Amino acid sequence: MGVQLTENGEQRNEMFFEMYWQYFVAGLVLWLTVKLGLYMKKSRSTETIVEDKQTKAHRVSRNDSDSESSPDDDLCPALPLDLKHIPLNFSKIPQEESLKRSEEFYQLMNRRRTVRHFSTKGVPKEIIRNIIKTAGTAPSGAHTEPWTYVVVSDPETKRKIREIIEEEEEINYKKRMGKVWTTDLKPLRTNWVKEYLTDAPYLILVFKQTYSLKPDGGKKIHYYNEQSVSLAAGILLAAIQNAGLVSLTSTPLNCGPALRALLQRPISEKLTLLLPVGYPAEACLVPDLTRKPLDDILVEF
Amino acid sequence: MGVQLTENGEQRNEMFFEMYWQYFVAGLVLWLTVKLGLYMKKSRSTETIVEDKQTKAHRVSRNDSDSESSPDDDLCPALPLDLKHIPLNFSKIPQEESLKRSEEFYQLMNRRRTVRHFSTKGVPKEIIRNIIKTAGTAPSGAHTEPWTYVVVSDPETKRKIREIIEEEEEINYKKRMGKVWTTDLKPLRTNWVKEYLTDAPYLILVFKQTYSLKPDGGKKIHYYNEQSVSLAAGILLAAIQNAGLVSLTSTPLNCGPALRALLQRPISEKLTLLLPVGYPAEACLVPDLTRKPLDDILVEF
Repeated sequence: MGVQLTENGEQRNEMFFEMYWQYFVAGLVLWLTVKLGLYMKKSRSTETIVEDKQTKAHRVSRNDSDSESSPDDDLCPALPLDLKHIPLNFSKIPQEESLKRSEEFYQLMNRRRTVRHFSTKGVPKEIIRNIIKTAGTAPSGAHTEPWTYVVVSDPETKRKIREIIEEEEEINYKKRMGKVWTTDLKPLRTNWVKEYLTDAPYLILVFKQTYSLKPDGGKKIHYYNEQSVSLAAGILLAAIQNAGLVSLTSTPLNCGPALRALLQRPISEKLTLLLPVGYPAEACLVPDLTRKPLDDILVEF
Repeated sequence: MGVQLTENGEQRNEMFFEMYWQYFVAGLVLWLTVKLGLYMKKSRSTETIVEDKQTKAHRVSRNDSDSESSPDDDLCPALPLDLKHIPLNFSKIPQEESLKRSEEFYQLMNRRRTVRHFSTKGVPKEIIRNIIKTAGTAPSGAHTEPWTYVVVSDPETKRKIREIIEEEEEINYKKRMGKVWTTDLKPLRTNWVKEYLTDAPYLILVFKQTYSLKPDGGKKIHYYNEQSVSLAAGILLAAIQNAGLVSLTSTPLNCGPALRALLQRPISEKLTLLLPVGYPAEACLVPDLTRKPLDDILVEF
């Protein structure tokens, strides 16, 4: 079949296809094969991220950053392998006293309320330091103690923190959080104006350490760092309440990187919570909330 | 071209292919197209899960289950819109007393150690109930109180829990956790045998509620449910320590669904922590760990 020159353009095109159609088909098959190969590769790499949700959650909480750094040959536990085990220092107290203490501690903690309006009255720094030390007694995954507490009392730094947060919070409320979330917050009368950031004598910014560096420069994995830091924050709150002070457990959405830079924390740390601490403002109001009764939160077997 | 019958089988095959090759090629193109289509569809659906990590983390923490249920027209806050605000009930204590209390509370909490060997001696249930009530005073995202505490003292149920956990933990230690994690745990001398699950008089299983149902049947989002439940667990630990008891903060990896089924918890709940509670065994040993000094965890501005 040779090329047939005709005056009719259409006919010319038909004959061109007739001659070269095998190449079109081969090209189509090749293109489809390459495309399929690329998608199979892409699908496999996203699968390793999504895979089993629980295993993923544990991998992320185990290692929020890069993959493990030590090859098997150099495996060295984060704690000394010959770590001694010693007798527990424990003093038993009579059960009647246990019961009384448990009732009093419940009454103390039940008086705790989240406070959003602070007095500017100062608090001795030693009290705050004891509170931080108490939070530092929390358990943590493999005893990694993955926390940094940044305590800010300097007025200029508090002002900068407030600027950063109010700017982000305005965007959060107006755009990011969505209607359902802002509606759920309406009864609590919160918005992006946060006077407590400059009123309260102290701001405690709780950073979680996603990893740290071992003496040999290798990365030390911080297992369950998010949960450990949140749990430690519960002990922090108990210490604040016990010391006769008030606080607010806030989570400044999207402010982490800017605050980390301002407070010169390393890239391995991520802001988890911000707690203003001090005394409540005069005539401070709180939402008239009630807590669930015991039967709503306890199931016994 | 017709079928040519020959005595040579090979020639017959060649001629078969010559006759029907267009169908083979068409079939190949069709198969490639279908496969590509399927992979494109799969890739798009995994992408919507991986997307932007921070937005995802907030979406997941806001709503661990399905998407928001209320259309804009029906938006109704989870708390009453006309929620009253009332004066805070606060009694100021002298700063010297604050300081003294903060020191004593630190000493109390610093004596807390994680204990893995329990006495079978009983504890009055009222103490445990007070401890749970205390944990229930924790703050939570939009006051959703997203926790269920399952307290198990029944020996048969504890035995079943132990069976489930030891079976999973053996696989965890031998396969899932990986060499680095098991190496990091070696100094703590843990393995998959967990006698404390049947020795301790009580097991507290902490479930987080990823969502709940509103009176109208719509889903109530539980913002920051993971962090809220972990924070409440810190208050729980403080209450346990304060009452003169000991515990272990454990995270039974991959046991959640089986334990949820055993304890008849709904699908909206996920096991977060398991804490045995009681008295330490006689001559109980603990790792000779030290806690970081204050300067390692505190930064002041």
